[in-house]
Amino acid sequence: MAFWLLMAPEEDARGLAQAIDRLKDAISLCSTCGALTEEDPCAICADPKRDPGVVCVVEGPDDLYAVERTGVYRGRYHVLQGTISPLEGIGPEDLFLSPLEERCKSGELQEVIIATSPTTEGEATALYIARRLEPLGVEVTRIARGVPMGGDLQYADKLTLSKSIEGRRALKSNN
Amino acid sequence: MAFWLLMAPEEDARGLAQAIDRLKDAISLCSTCGALTEEDPCAICADPKRDPGVVCVVEGPDDLYAVERTGVYRGRYHVLQGTISPLEGIGPEDLFLSPLEERCKSGELQEVIIATSPTTEGEATALYIARRLEPLGVEVTRIARGVPMGGDLQYADKLTLSKSIEGRRALKSNN
Repeated sequence: MAFWLLMAPEEDARGLAQAIDRLKDAISLCSTCGALTEEDPCAICADPKRDPGVVCVVEGPDDLYAVERTGVYRGRYHVLQGTISPLEGIGPEDLFLSPLEERCKSGELQEVIIATSPTTEGEATALYIARRLEPLGVEVTRIARGVPMGGDLQYADKLTLSKSIEGRRALKSNN
Repeated sequence: MAFWLLMAPEEDARGLAQAIDRLKDAISLCSTCGALTEEDPCAICADPKRDPGVVCVVEGPDDLYAVERTGVYRGRYHVLQGTISPLEGIGPEDLFLSPLEERCKSGELQEVIIATSPTTEGEATALYIARRLEPLGVEVTRIARGVPMGGDLQYADKLTLSKSIEGRRALKSNN
């Protein structure tokens, strides 16, 4: 990239510099949910058509877009800005967690869906949040971990298959 | 393999022939659950320590071993010997399904866990079985489909992530 900038016409390089400048001016975090936004509150928090009673907790803004792309989720979000990771020195106080607690205390939430990745850090963070939100009287749920769609049982790892069996649900022929 | 047999010492080749011969004599399908076995009923069906009230329905014997390897399942099995696949001309009547219905009718079963793979055929077979067993009064459940353990939300495909959100469950901090 450095070589490209050195060889690029002056206006292209300066254009990029200005664009990055504007980016850092224009984009900030939504004070309610922590999503990247140009306005505060963000478009999702401000959207009256999104269910204000359900919040999906994700690790980062890219996870928010992954969930949005599915098109099945109509609630709001809370972006943690990371996961608890003692090895990297990231503790709960480094995450965007207190505002989530405030949202729970305000009484507007019925359900908090914890959609951190099913990695070691993501699972530990999920349990930590559940423990912290439980006394506040909201229902805390966790996304299903299991065999991915199109996948084969035989090629699923033991842990995934265990979670898949443990997480089984009633199957009705009309759903 | 043909060249190996041609070049192999006579006793090795004849030994393999006899082994295959014995295999086809000794191994058959368990008349109760359809698993590969040397004795009928198979060791799992005959094991009094396995819960006789729960049956895990799998496509083939290799799937049975995949579930066994997890070590979390203590019920019994039912091996369908395939999936419904109209493109390959395999209909419900080609599967080991009637014996499952008989097991449900006998009243010994409380839960049938359908653990076919989350492929098109596996999902269709799961729904078909649910529809057929529903009138018999057993609880039919389906293994969880979702983001695999260790996986990252961002790299999950849309369908898997949708299933993962739809299939969310209550998270208690003590589990």
